[in-house]
Amino acid sequence: MRVPEPVAEVRRAVRQAVPGGADGPFAVIVACSGGADSLALAAAAVHVAPGPVLGVVVDHGLQGGSDEHAARTAALLRDLGAARADVVAVEVGTSGGPEAAARAARYAALRSISQQHGDAPVLLGHTLDDQAETVLLGLGRGSGARSLAGMAAWDPPWCRPLLGVRRATTRAACAAAGLAVWDDPHNADPRYTRVRLRHEVLPLLEDVLAGGVAPALARTAAQLADDDATLTALADGRRHELVDDDGALDAVALAVDPPAIRRRVLRGWLHAAGVAELSDAHLRAVDALVAAWRGQGAPPLPGGLEVVRARGRLRVAAAGAGTAPHAPPPIC
Amino acid sequence: MRVPEPVAEVRRAVRQAVPGGADGPFAVIVACSGGADSLALAAAAVHVAPGPVLGVVVDHGLQGGSDEHAARTAALLRDLGAARADVVAVEVGTSGGPEAAARAARYAALRSISQQHGDAPVLLGHTLDDQAETVLLGLGRGSGARSLAGMAAWDPPWCRPLLGVRRATTRAACAAAGLAVWDDPHNADPRYTRVRLRHEVLPLLEDVLAGGVAPALARTAAQLADDDATLTALADGRRHELVDDDGALDAVALAVDPPAIRRRVLRGWLHAAGVAELSDAHLRAVDALVAAWRGQGAPPLPGGLEVVRARGRLRVAAAGAGTAPHAPPPIC
Repeated sequence: MRVPEPVAEVRRAVRQAVPGGADGPFAVIVACSGGADSLALAAAAVHVAPGPVLGVVVDHGLQGGSDEHAARTAALLRDLGAARADVVAVEVGTSGGPEAAARAARYAALRSISQQHGDAPVLLGHTLDDQAETVLLGLGRGSGARSLAGMAAWDPPWCRPLLGVRRATTRAACAAAGLAVWDDPHNADPRYTRVRLRHEVLPLLEDVLAGGVAPALARTAAQLADDDATLTALADGRRHELVDDDGALDAVALAVDPPAIRRRVLRGWLHAAGVAELSDAHLRAVDALVAAWRGQGAPPLPGGLEVVRARGRLRVAAAGAGTAPHAPPPIC
Repeated sequence: MRVPEPVAEVRRAVRQAVPGGADGPFAVIVACSGGADSLALAAAAVHVAPGPVLGVVVDHGLQGGSDEHAARTAALLRDLGAARADVVAVEVGTSGGPEAAARAARYAALRSISQQHGDAPVLLGHTLDDQAETVLLGLGRGSGARSLAGMAAWDPPWCRPLLGVRRATTRAACAAAGLAVWDDPHNADPRYTRVRLRHEVLPLLEDVLAGGVAPALARTAAQLADDDATLTALADGRRHELVDDDGALDAVALAVDPPAIRRRVLRGWLHAAGVAELSDAHLRAVDALVAAWRGQGAPPLPGGLEVVRARGRLRVAAAGAGTAPHAPPPIC
């Protein structure tokens, strides 16, 4: 029997993407919501994975009957040929809004399951259309390639085989295979930014720019991810040359580097110094200490920290503590 | 008398941007349509330029009375303090659509005027909002940093001092200075892609992404331009290592370079070989000869050319001429 083209396309994408050499009992773990994307992914994975597949359905407990839905989806994964399919209930917090909180709980649970099974790769069903939406989400942040590089195809344990496959293809693959698809009501709720990008912004852009926008955004994301990886590797090498044994950074030497390297050296250095949640505005203020030095004050950073320039070197210090490196925050 | 803040902001931007050291009789040339952006630019330039200012008004001849409008604008520039203000009538062709044709005619005329005056810099009134629209236009092309890097602040003879200034500020600066602003009817015509981006897409994105989109797009453009400049410089150095005296490129050695460098080496090499109007699809086909070589055929390029791989080296050849480098197109 001939394999329908959408099914074949999804299988090809999964075959090319799935890494080999898993240590544990499962070749891959497939995260499945029961929606078209992850269902088509799971069906393809059981066909092409180089060993047994573990299906995982995360129950976020956000809707009545979500436990029953999850159990039905797990049963469907077993029917499809998964060696095993588990339902994992997670507790969704509130930090960062409902989308971000559900995502954080889901990823934490999946990462833990991967660790329990020899760090098996976790296959996620994000499509080309999801990638396009992610790029548009990044437009509002304005921090260059990092904002627009979208989701990575392979960022262990996460593996996204369908970033080059359209959402319409996963839906067609499910239809061709006779699989009943679950439509998450969240996917139509305009309170979610991503939903409005999908249903309002992307169709308008397609109209104004005369089509092809989603694939163009996905291509751009892939190229910017390549650019960022190359520049970040160069900057990491440069950072090791410029940081002394006390962790201070040579600002005078860094000032002659091109801005693309300079900003990445600073980002890596601040990250290594324990500065979390660095915004683009923070980074620009620190960069000005290097590239536009005129004796200005120490720019404040998240976590009660600041960056101090003294004798041509930058140090991260507790805010108000002067040049003492990594001093504890003052009692106040 | 205190200078109104919008006027001061435009002057600061122009003072920081204008390059010194012009050879000819004019320090700068200012291109002015009579619209708020270029009028505010011209008014600032006569204040802060390090020498006499030449105003130029391009008459595209696309609307009845355009010659009278151009003459009035030139007179206004002289009133503002321009040492001289000329009207230049251009012939607008049809290639690439009305916007592109008018732009090509305008830039050609301004470049020629710059050359007549010792390569004086030509100041253009593009604002932060124009830059944001340019980034959105680039989204539809999908060729990474190059598509999204927007317009350069300094790309001789073009100088764009207002890329960090909002359109609302130039309008406020004109109002504060009592300057009568011309509103180009083209700026409200929804047949133009840029007009729809301005009036439909950007307001929707601002709403969906909760504001700050235009400055974020402009910041992203600046960072991507920095990234692209650094990677292009690295790729140019690498290309000189990989191209032999006959212009053939060592594909085997190039295959180990990261894709961000590889693609730029190929783009630079194809450009040097005379391949014009290279699309992203062309570049990917040539890249596959390097990074995904399996004996595939020679990909066709614009201008009746193709790229042939033989003995581990790439050559540009006339389509169908096999491996002969730079052979004339076959007679057919």
